[in-house]
Amino acid sequence: MSADHEFDRTDTDNEIQRAAKLYRNWGRWGEDDKIGTMNFLTEEKRLEAAKLIRRGKSFTLSAPFDQEGPQKGWRRRTNPTLFMMDTGTDASLKRQGFPHGAGGADDFISMPLSCSTQWDGLGHFFDYGKTWNGKDSSNIDGMGDHGTGIENMAPHIVGRGVLLDFGRSHGTNGELPDGFAIRAEHILECIEAQGASSKVGRGDIVIVRTGHMTRCKKLPNWGTFAMGDAPGFSFSTSKWMFETEIAAVASDTWGFEVRPNELENSFQPLHQIMIPNMGLTVGEIWDLDELAEDCAQDGQYDFFLTAAPMRITGAVSSPVNPIAVK
Amino acid sequence: MSADHEFDRTDTDNEIQRAAKLYRNWGRWGEDDKIGTMNFLTEEKRLEAAKLIRRGKSFTLSAPFDQEGPQKGWRRRTNPTLFMMDTGTDASLKRQGFPHGAGGADDFISMPLSCSTQWDGLGHFFDYGKTWNGKDSSNIDGMGDHGTGIENMAPHIVGRGVLLDFGRSHGTNGELPDGFAIRAEHILECIEAQGASSKVGRGDIVIVRTGHMTRCKKLPNWGTFAMGDAPGFSFSTSKWMFETEIAAVASDTWGFEVRPNELENSFQPLHQIMIPNMGLTVGEIWDLDELAEDCAQDGQYDFFLTAAPMRITGAVSSPVNPIAVK
Amino acid sequence: MSADHEFDRTDTDNEIQRAAKLYRNWGRWGEDDKIGTMNFLTEEKRLEAAKLIRRGKSFTLSAPFDQEGPQKGWRRRTNPTLFMMDTGTDASLKRQGFPHGAGGADDFISMPLSCSTQWDGLGHFFDYGKTWNGKDSSNIDGMGDHGTGIENMAPHIVGRGVLLDFGRSHGTNGELPDGFAIRAEHILECIEAQGASSKVGRGDIVIVRTGHMTRCKKLPNWGTFAMGDAPGFSFSTSKWMFETEIAAVASDTWGFEVRPNELENSFQPLHQIMIPNMGLTVGEIWDLDELAEDCAQDGQYDFFLTAAPMRITGAVSSPVNPIAVK
Amino acid sequence: MSADHEFDRTDTDNEIQRAAKLYRNWGRWGEDDKIGTMNFLTEEKRLEAAKLIRRGKSFTLSAPFDQEGPQKGWRRRTNPTLFMMDTGTDASLKRQGFPHGAGGADDFISMPLSCSTQWDGLGHFFDYGKTWNGKDSSNIDGMGDHGTGIENMAPHIVGRGVLLDFGRSHGTNGELPDGFAIRAEHILECIEAQGASSKVGRGDIVIVRTGHMTRCKKLPNWGTFAMGDAPGFSFSTSKWMFETEIAAVASDTWGFEVRPNELENSFQPLHQIMIPNMGLTVGEIWDLDELAEDCAQDGQYDFFLTAAPMRITGAVSSPVNPIAVK
Repeated sequence: MSADHEFDRTDTDNEIQRAAKLYRNWGRWGEDDKIGTMNFLTEEKRLEAAKLIRRGKSFTLSAPFDQEGPQKGWRRRTNPTLFMMDTGTDASLKRQGFPHGAGGADDFISMPLSCSTQWDGLGHFFDYGKTWNGKDSSNIDGMGDHGTGIENMAPHIVGRGVLLDFGRSHGTNGELPDGFAIRAEHILECIEAQGASSKVGRGDIVIVRTGHMTRCKKLPNWGTFAMGDAPGFSFSTSKWMFETEIAAVASDTWGFEVRPNELENSFQPLHQIMIPNMGLTVGEIWDLDELAEDCAQDGQYDFFLTAAPMRITGAVSSPVNPIAVK
Repeated sequence: MSADHEFDRTDTDNEIQRAAKLYRNWGRWGEDDKIGTMNFLTEEKRLEAAKLIRRGKSFTLSAPFDQEGPQKGWRRRTNPTLFMMDTGTDASLKRQGFPHGAGGADDFISMPLSCSTQWDGLGHFFDYGKTWNGKDSSNIDGMGDHGTGIENMAPHIVGRGVLLDFGRSHGTNGELPDGFAIRAEHILECIEAQGASSKVGRGDIVIVRTGHMTRCKKLPNWGTFAMGDAPGFSFSTSKWMFETEIAAVASDTWGFEVRPNELENSFQPLHQIMIPNMGLTVGEIWDLDELAEDCAQDGQYDFFLTAAPMRITGAVSSPVNPIAVK
Repeated sequence: MSADHEFDRTDTDNEIQRAAKLYRNWGRWGEDDKIGTMNFLTEEKRLEAAKLIRRGKSFTLSAPFDQEGPQKGWRRRTNPTLFMMDTGTDASLKRQGFPHGAGGADDFISMPLSCSTQWDGLGHFFDYGKTWNGKDSSNIDGMGDHGTGIENMAPHIVGRGVLLDFGRSHGTNGELPDGFAIRAEHILECIEAQGASSKVGRGDIVIVRTGHMTRCKKLPNWGTFAMGDAPGFSFSTSKWMFETEIAAVASDTWGFEVRPNELENSFQPLHQIMIPNMGLTVGEIWDLDELAEDCAQDGQYDFFLTAAPMRITGAVSSPVNPIAVK
Repeated sequence: MSADHEFDRTDTDNEIQRAAKLYRNWGRWGEDDKIGTMNFLTEEKRLEAAKLIRRGKSFTLSAPFDQEGPQKGWRRRTNPTLFMMDTGTDASLKRQGFPHGAGGADDFISMPLSCSTQWDGLGHFFDYGKTWNGKDSSNIDGMGDHGTGIENMAPHIVGRGVLLDFGRSHGTNGELPDGFAIRAEHILECIEAQGASSKVGRGDIVIVRTGHMTRCKKLPNWGTFAMGDAPGFSFSTSKWMFETEIAAVASDTWGFEVRPNELENSFQPLHQIMIPNMGLTVGEIWDLDELAEDCAQDGQYDFFLTAAPMRITGAVSSPVNPIAVK
């Protein structure tokens, strides 16, 4: 029996609805639950994760936030803009009016919350007008997400992270080609190849490296990193993610799932299963290269991960600086 | 001999320059150092901190980021504004054009980087035209901080946090009055009162609770939380912070140090010592109430703290969602 | 027979629906019309208006756009924020890298389009889910106004302006008290008092001075200018505006119509008639004091008015710098 | 004797300094003047201009303000972003909470003030650290322009506009090629070719059509409209502009002057003469095609022009919707 969810890519509508029904966690943690599969990440799990800190070395998994980022403006997703409200040049020229040598710099940012390393919150994607727990998507209006805003995740996303480095296990020179659909069978192979520290179970945060960012960040303007073709999880992994009861998942690509999308005439169909039905928080645009290099060297693929979203009231996504400690 | 740095509050200029000279770490970690006292937070220290995780319980120390925040517009410091670029209402009314039941919400934020729970980076404050390591403050221009941008801190701020709850040790109903200057003698008393888990040493991140936020967040529009009078560290603590070799410090007030400022006709004079001279990163507007309640109950005041700033290229400050794990 | 539309203020729902039906221009200029009563402002009308230029003196009717403005944050309506992206201080310190003495300053603005002197476009207000010409309000979604965006008004708003200075004709010291409901009878009295140059007819742009801004701009933070009580047009003027066939109307208050609103438990009910039903563009927060002083002196109350909205694709409102030339 | 200012393109530094001295208006209107050559636009001049209104037809000379604009991010100059704060979809789904069928849409914009059709104010460009009237460029700091902010221009820019259509007089199919340097001799030829209505004198606003925008707005993403090669005024026209005593000048290109710049290793050297020395306000990215077509048809090249900048306190540039009336 396959660990994969098999599907007919020409029957888009039925396949989405079938998977949605099979892998739906609505009501599992009560009608008013706001964090979905993050419920799997218990204090016991977090305590176990603490034991993975063996050297005290910390890694940021964040890509930079600046104008040189990968966004190209699709649906107004631009790169972040930093503004200096007060500068050292003003201070040097004594323009600020503070007494006795005091002076300061102050700054401001304007950015899509999904512009760089990010979490998709539970209000970020819908399935036929439904959001997490079967609520109507109209609960997310021009004022924000009135039910599952990212602020609800603020204290929770800290636990055991496991890096699955498909770039190394199934790719060439550490990179999967664009369009490579990672299936459950590949997941099992990757875990097998990486060894015991890669075992994944309930409450884990799975970190997927494809090597796509490695390739794109060297290109002028990141090439087609945003919206273009990319390796990523197949629609077939919905079964594995559901049954394994992971707490969250993240990857080094723009859109997590494989692109071109597998179902005919679909747009990010795995998102439709993962976020509103499964209640799974999805991370995107994570920079995993430094961590992956370290894991390849010491063979330890699990670590203590803190990936705290900003506590923005009513937001459906959040920038994040995920910190892995080994 | 006092642990406090004694000073004459009428001799502002000389006192600032004297303290600056006494507690200056310029060159200590090389001419091109970008993280200052964060160098004290070593891997060994971080490894020790991991042992403080005993229950797996996590706490956010972030205040909310929304229009109901404490800012009043001083030097254009406003509260953050969330914009919805795509909404569930649009999706419900089938306005988005995605196929087969797909739909999404997307959001955008505009905010001063110092609007809510934050780190002041090493380029945030100057002393007579000098910034960290003696560099000229003009290195921070309209394009950002070309030397000590907050991105340099991205992987590092994870270690042992110690809560010093002066609200409980020296206040009434858990709150210090406005204008209360916390001196080194109070620090020692607080540590004594709280017990062994509160011992502070090299590489620790000191978290200062005054109760000021507890009081102000209940007031309409936060009262005068921003820019008004507040309890906070005295100028005299510069000696203790320097000699103790802490890695960073943060508090539950708008401006960390006591206000009104102690030195006549000065503006945040302790900042002038801490940031550009000592190289000490300072956190402000942290919400410590839930953590403090827990510490008061179990008597354990130290914890594993991850306080990862956003990796914003060239920024002088950053919002942060600090996560304490006990 | 009264020029006023009489109404029962306790019968809100019926009164709104009755007036909406009576003063509705749907279909008058075709099903796809995008400019409503601006159609009354013909080239002939504009040519007549040109003859009103007798001295060549120009007046701005714009209030300032800056952080000191009247907004208090209702529904995220804040004052505008100006950011300097490049500064003269940077240039003075030779930080910009331009050759041979070249240097520049560059700036950026973030603002609600309704933050200061503005036009409400035809997509700005709805009546029971309907917008101008009977279209469904859902045509205005997260991407903007797909039907009647303000860009459609870009070339048109130039013609004869007539100042009706109710502050002087019916007020004390040039100011109407808050809550003063200007009715059609007052309009006729004002025109009578001001003389022949104040006659209003088809295609005119009526400029209403109440003195409310005069009073509020002297108060700390503009007092309750935004959202508070104010003088303004009564619900009863809907008849006069409709029958007179004016092209547009503007005033020196935050919300044009009298506040508190006259109909019980209503919110800006006259807007509901004027914008979606009549197709009338409404200007707010216009600073009329300098112009009014001049008109009071020379007795000429009409002038050539250019009030060009920004050509922002899909916007429902626009800042404007209206220029009157006498 | 030539109407052109002749120069040696290899002697950049000397040529800039020579022209700066020759065409400098510092002190001409007093030490505290804030509007430069706009002083030439007198009430008499404006009165004359009113006589040019013969048909009552109005034209917008503004390009659209939206994400499809020409900017590519140079020095953070992006295209404008419109955000909807309240939408009709929210209203349709009764999410807004207004009573009795009331509902509204509200919007917000974030944009560089130079992103589309604009004025460069007198604080926008420097010459060896000097700005208009010989003031130090450090008067323009992180808080804005403390001397010559664009708000000073708010009531003034209304007068006689003259279109010089070099695309038609010297180009092919109405377009000059990139790199074409328009010299004074071409100006005189164009005026000669266009006839009496094109005569330019003191106080006029000269509108320069090159056809560059016509070409670029048809290209994907506007091609290299921003920052690329373009036709434009030659450095040699500084003499003609100075002697003719025009009030302002504007064109249909990104940077007004010819690109590549004529002086070796220079950046916009004509700006260095025009703005800080001559005190001449410069318009860029104006869309002149519809007006030019009309002028070509009726042979009348002058018109009543209102080009009112927004009244933004301390800004160095401003978006504008220029309205020509013939």
